[in-house]
Amino acid sequence: MVKRVADSTVRRLSLYLSFLEELSGSGAATVSSDVLARLGGTTSAQVRKDLSFFGSFGKRGLGYAVPELIESLRDILGLRREWKVCIVGAGKIGVALARYPGFAEKGFHVVAVYDADPKKIGTQWDSLLVRDVATLSSDTNREHYDIAVIAVPAEAAQNVADILVEAGVKAIMNFAPSQISVPPDVVVRTVNMALEFEGLSYALAHRTK
Amino acid sequence: MVKRVADSTVRRLSLYLSFLEELSGSGAATVSSDVLARLGGTTSAQVRKDLSFFGSFGKRGLGYAVPELIESLRDILGLRREWKVCIVGAGKIGVALARYPGFAEKGFHVVAVYDADPKKIGTQWDSLLVRDVATLSSDTNREHYDIAVIAVPAEAAQNVADILVEAGVKAIMNFAPSQISVPPDVVVRTVNMALEFEGLSYALAHRTK
Repeated sequence: MVKRVADSTVRRLSLYLSFLEELSGSGAATVSSDVLARLGGTTSAQVRKDLSFFGSFGKRGLGYAVPELIESLRDILGLRREWKVCIVGAGKIGVALARYPGFAEKGFHVVAVYDADPKKIGTQWDSLLVRDVATLSSDTNREHYDIAVIAVPAEAAQNVADILVEAGVKAIMNFAPSQISVPPDVVVRTVNMALEFEGLSYALAHRTK
Repeated sequence: MVKRVADSTVRRLSLYLSFLEELSGSGAATVSSDVLARLGGTTSAQVRKDLSFFGSFGKRGLGYAVPELIESLRDILGLRREWKVCIVGAGKIGVALARYPGFAEKGFHVVAVYDADPKKIGTQWDSLLVRDVATLSSDTNREHYDIAVIAVPAEAAQNVADILVEAGVKAIMNFAPSQISVPPDVVVRTVNMALEFEGLSYALAHRTK
């Protein structure tokens, strides 16, 4: 039985894990909740509360043992399993993603890539052949992708999402510059760097001097 | 005088712009608020309201003229100007960013790259030489970067942010896996793909079957 945990808690767990991995790389054996809190932009009470959802970690006055906490967080975050990832849209974003540092190490394995462009279908894409998006539905039914990445133009995104959901995909990463609608049992995250940078340029352009 | 506009509105304006650019590429001359709404995951009333903040666009029954609305949105979003961008941290994320499709086209020009690693300082990085992060403060005072990208390890992020803010930078894109604190007149956006994917794996690992 897992308690209902807020997205913001899960995000902090990810942050804690990435600090711990850095700390581990530099040889640290223990870490205090104060240090985790500072790096996570939160309080040590919040750190202890976040971790307490999942069990008992750390010893009073001694802090947390870095390797053990790393293993626990990987387990909690589902990173000790392998996830089959398909990418729909064999463009630059997909390539950048497949080469993103640490992506495969964390258990995210890109096993298929799709495109609608006849010029791309059948070409080599790193170690994979680009498949015809027309086979997405039947492939997904057969291969049971855990996570699908949508990296297609805005206008095609909802249609791709519908195909994936219909074929049973429960987790979607959306890089398309549009919102997609999915049923409540499907989880979607969106990454849109252009939009983040335009938020900055908007703010700069409209600064009151 | 610019009215106070919510972040969510600015995000939708970015989405509208990216659809319009796609539509324009496929030769569309006009677009209805209904189509913009569908792609933006909102209502046509919201589209009209979002745009009405910034002036009068579109004609009743005729929709919006695509090229004119593109120009207006670029203007609103600060994309008809050039922004000087420096990247702190000459790693894989920085490289991916500098090669991100359309980044320079939108007016974001990477003019300097910094690193703390003596093995990287002085090496060629695309068309730029990697500079010593020790010169970040004096360089920023002299060159007035508009936007700074922080792509350093978590533990170094706050220190880099402090240097940038002290030297007058008002907009920061944070790719470091940690929260940074800045004064209220500095705008920060955060992009962390690992964190988004871990949100998906967490949700999958904790699904009630």
